[in-house]
Amino acid sequence: MTSERRTRLSPEARRAQLIALGVQMLATQTLDELSVEAIAAEAGISRGLLFHYFSSKQNFYREVVRATAADLIARTAPDPALGPLDALRASLDAFVGYVEENPAGYKSLVRGAAGGDGEMLAIFDETRSALAQRTVEMAEAGGFELPATARIAAHGWIAFAEECVIRWLDHPEVDRDALLDLLGTALPLLLVGAAAGAGAVSALLPAVG
Amino acid sequence: MTSERRTRLSPEARRAQLIALGVQMLATQTLDELSVEAIAAEAGISRGLLFHYFSSKQNFYREVVRATAADLIARTAPDPALGPLDALRASLDAFVGYVEENPAGYKSLVRGAAGGDGEMLAIFDETRSALAQRTVEMAEAGGFELPATARIAAHGWIAFAEECVIRWLDHPEVDRDALLDLLGTALPLLLVGAAAGAGAVSALLPAVG
Repeated sequence: MTSERRTRLSPEARRAQLIALGVQMLATQTLDELSVEAIAAEAGISRGLLFHYFSSKQNFYREVVRATAADLIARTAPDPALGPLDALRASLDAFVGYVEENPAGYKSLVRGAAGGDGEMLAIFDETRSALAQRTVEMAEAGGFELPATARIAAHGWIAFAEECVIRWLDHPEVDRDALLDLLGTALPLLLVGAAAGAGAVSALLPAVG
Repeated sequence: MTSERRTRLSPEARRAQLIALGVQMLATQTLDELSVEAIAAEAGISRGLLFHYFSSKQNFYREVVRATAADLIARTAPDPALGPLDALRASLDAFVGYVEENPAGYKSLVRGAAGGDGEMLAIFDETRSALAQRTVEMAEAGGFELPATARIAAHGWIAFAEECVIRWLDHPEVDRDALLDLLGTALPLLLVGAAAGAGAVSALLPAVG
């Protein structure tokens, strides 16, 4: 226990410290494995004091998941200085890097750690919606006018990317670059395909050669 | 309570009846809302007798989810008499029909009713893998040789379809046919795109006109 940890922190700083420890531990643990006892011990406070800052374990978990989601959104923010396809690639690179660093926690979140918790589900839905909305804005900045089906496709692509990365973690049958190619190609294909309708498939077939 | 329900059933028949009632109730309820009391009452047996057949509530839930997944897989089985694209369309039509009939339960399952339950997660993973594997076989029957990235893409497409349908249920901004077009176009686009690599996007662009 360092002296820094023993320092008396303001309530805001203590809350932030506990949440940050939770986010950090979620890298290598599933949400279910996350122990409030271990986090309190790491912060040098009692379990009871942790519950003074967070009314319940579930409430603490929610704040940890909210902070994790905000971290993911920030780390994958597209760089406005790049063109849309390069910004997409850099963003996906950051996304895959994030999942590589946080495999257990990420997988547990995507695979339903929310259980029947409505507030937790709302955090997941908001996160996916924020990522999808950003994707739509990136495409529109690239000059595409997106029909309603393409907006649905943008949401679907977020789930596609989540699933592909999780599958890739468990079965790394292709290299990282091939995974990035797959994810980065899929988005414009799905958006353009949604705009082109059923003709899209036949237009693409010659490209396979 | 009908006389049929009062009938003494064999253990196998009673288990099957209870699971079928669970599957049926899951249409309009989330897994969390599913009440073993209500199911026992509907079957005309005591709560205690239900626990005689299933060791725990969680165990009963698992069997209900397993049966629900088997039902979904069976109902969306591709018709071998049709060509691959027609079989895909019919399968997607059945899938969307299934979700329309079971919105609450379906959404709760996709959105993480598994919680931290490892066995439940395994059922979900197996179901998605079965659907993805069937998709790969359908494409290969259509004459495509799929590279490893395309097999990852097939898994991703299952998640894409789940997410699009759930988004569409909550925000029905396009009609059912447009949704089916989107889902049915996405799969060959993603598989062909995975095979074509980065050149796929530029090959498709002229199709948008």
